[in-house]
Amino acid sequence: MSCDDITPRGKMVGSKFIFPIRIYYEDTDAGGVVYYANYLRFAERTRTEFLRHLGFGNQQEILEKDRFAFMVRHVEADYRAPAVLDDLLTITCEMIEQKGATATLLQEIKRGEDVLVEVKVKAVYVNLEKRRPMRMPCDLIEKMKVLP
Amino acid sequence: MSCDDITPRGKMVGSKFIFPIRIYYEDTDAGGVVYYANYLRFAERTRTEFLRHLGFGNQQEILEKDRFAFMVRHVEADYRAPAVLDDLLTITCEMIEQKGATATLLQEIKRGEDVLVEVKVKAVYVNLEKRRPMRMPCDLIEKMKVLP
Amino acid sequence: MSCDDITPRGKMVGSKFIFPIRIYYEDTDAGGVVYYANYLRFAERTRTEFLRHLGFGNQQEILEKDRFAFMVRHVEADYRAPAVLDDLLTITCEMIEQKGATATLLQEIKRGEDVLVEVKVKAVYVNLEKRRPMRMPCDLIEKMKVLP
Amino acid sequence: MSCDDITPRGKMVGSKFIFPIRIYYEDTDAGGVVYYANYLRFAERTRTEFLRHLGFGNQQEILEKDRFAFMVRHVEADYRAPAVLDDLLTITCEMIEQKGATATLLQEIKRGEDVLVEVKVKAVYVNLEKRRPMRMPCDLIEKMKVLP
Repeated sequence: MSCDDITPRGKMVGSKFIFPIRIYYEDTDAGGVVYYANYLRFAERTRTEFLRHLGFGNQQEILEKDRFAFMVRHVEADYRAPAVLDDLLTITCEMIEQKGATATLLQEIKRGEDVLVEVKVKAVYVNLEKRRPMRMPCDLIEKMKVLP
Repeated sequence: MSCDDITPRGKMVGSKFIFPIRIYYEDTDAGGVVYYANYLRFAERTRTEFLRHLGFGNQQEILEKDRFAFMVRHVEADYRAPAVLDDLLTITCEMIEQKGATATLLQEIKRGEDVLVEVKVKAVYVNLEKRRPMRMPCDLIEKMKVLP
Repeated sequence: MSCDDITPRGKMVGSKFIFPIRIYYEDTDAGGVVYYANYLRFAERTRTEFLRHLGFGNQQEILEKDRFAFMVRHVEADYRAPAVLDDLLTITCEMIEQKGATATLLQEIKRGEDVLVEVKVKAVYVNLEKRRPMRMPCDLIEKMKVLP
Repeated sequence: MSCDDITPRGKMVGSKFIFPIRIYYEDTDAGGVVYYANYLRFAERTRTEFLRHLGFGNQQEILEKDRFAFMVRHVEADYRAPAVLDDLLTITCEMIEQKGATATLLQEIKRGEDVLVEVKVKAVYVNLEKRRPMRMPCDLIEKMKVLP
């Protein structure tokens, strides 16, 4: 039962990584729309897939052996229009700034050409043992600096 | 920005529908494995994609206009081994019984050939206005009775 | 089996409403800390309890009959330190601005005296049928303007 | 800002531990009711509070230092009626069987006197390092065997 043909994956479009996410019942609330905190889940899934696309897909290994992880320090989310059940969204991810241990990412949550939610995330690369920020690996920085 | 090539979708393998699901941070807990309730989310996503595959993908429309939905009446979940961060699982869905308003589905949550969790779900087709079970549409029954 | 004595409720401390939230497995992730999107859930629970405390606890009724709900337009979250399993947090909620259909709330997610996450939320009172903002009810505005 | 008076806690009623849970937007879905997997979250919160009530509230410490945790092996959930937004539920927890590393718990999710969902959970006490079941501590067994 090979699943290569149905493995979920994103792709680069210019300097942006894009990843598709379908809206299920679990994502919605009694207001009939997607619950506001869940857009941050979609954003995180897309950041993780971006890392995987760049060759850093072994988060579990990095977490258990090297004890490193990205931790979010700041989020700004601008909600323009709601997504609903069955929507097929595309979430983008683009690095707009990088300095030492910190990366700032701009993410758009879109339905077709409409931006429903815009998310700006500042994440820090952290050594979990020492609980302190560490310079991001050079090869990761290089790969994230994707230019059109 | 067309996304046809990266739209998440499953496929039929014999009488089973299979759908791939990747494990993200949001799915795991501090024990280092997937939180036990979240496997039911994966099962539901797969049932929804099974319906979509059979041509019943417009749940939002059915919900809002016709006011119908499947409601789960009974679940049995057998947890054999845990999934962890980054795992790419395949979830199966097979109808093993259908009678009037009720469908019983057997679902396996697998990593490679290993069944991590087996889920048996009894779902009822319900008219949300009258809050009572209704016979499932004939064309839906016919399509769910997939034979190898 | 009366539960009045164990019903979860918050209280006012000066101009701030405070509500206690315990951290369970479901709130954490494989990194060993609370998943970043879940703090927004805690913030929303606290806003809802604030409304209930002010006498507007019937959200289900307002949603179904009057078809009104608060919708979040903008969120800023500043993550300073992580919460972990078993933590008993207190979440505050204070209205810092109100204008027409819009209320801006400042919320602190605290463990003891430490602010772990600061959340600023701009919410709009929306008529769900017409899908447009409506002036907040006067008695709600009056009650939210709590002064020490 | 002491919160002793608003700390969420349950209580024993005969041989059953009961814990109150309020339904928020995050718990519901677009069908207007609580999403089926979320009842398992409520059940787990109540089991955790039951342990805390018995003096085993330091799950984080047990997890990090002793590397022990309860893992769910089997769940049966019978859904009779749905909960909705704003509902104040009481969840019960009663040990109905205990043998070596395994405890079987019966849990009722109630609104007033109505049982909305009945959940039967078989949990195993596991050493996370060795990834194998270990006999539950005697003092824990003694305390869980609460009799009216």
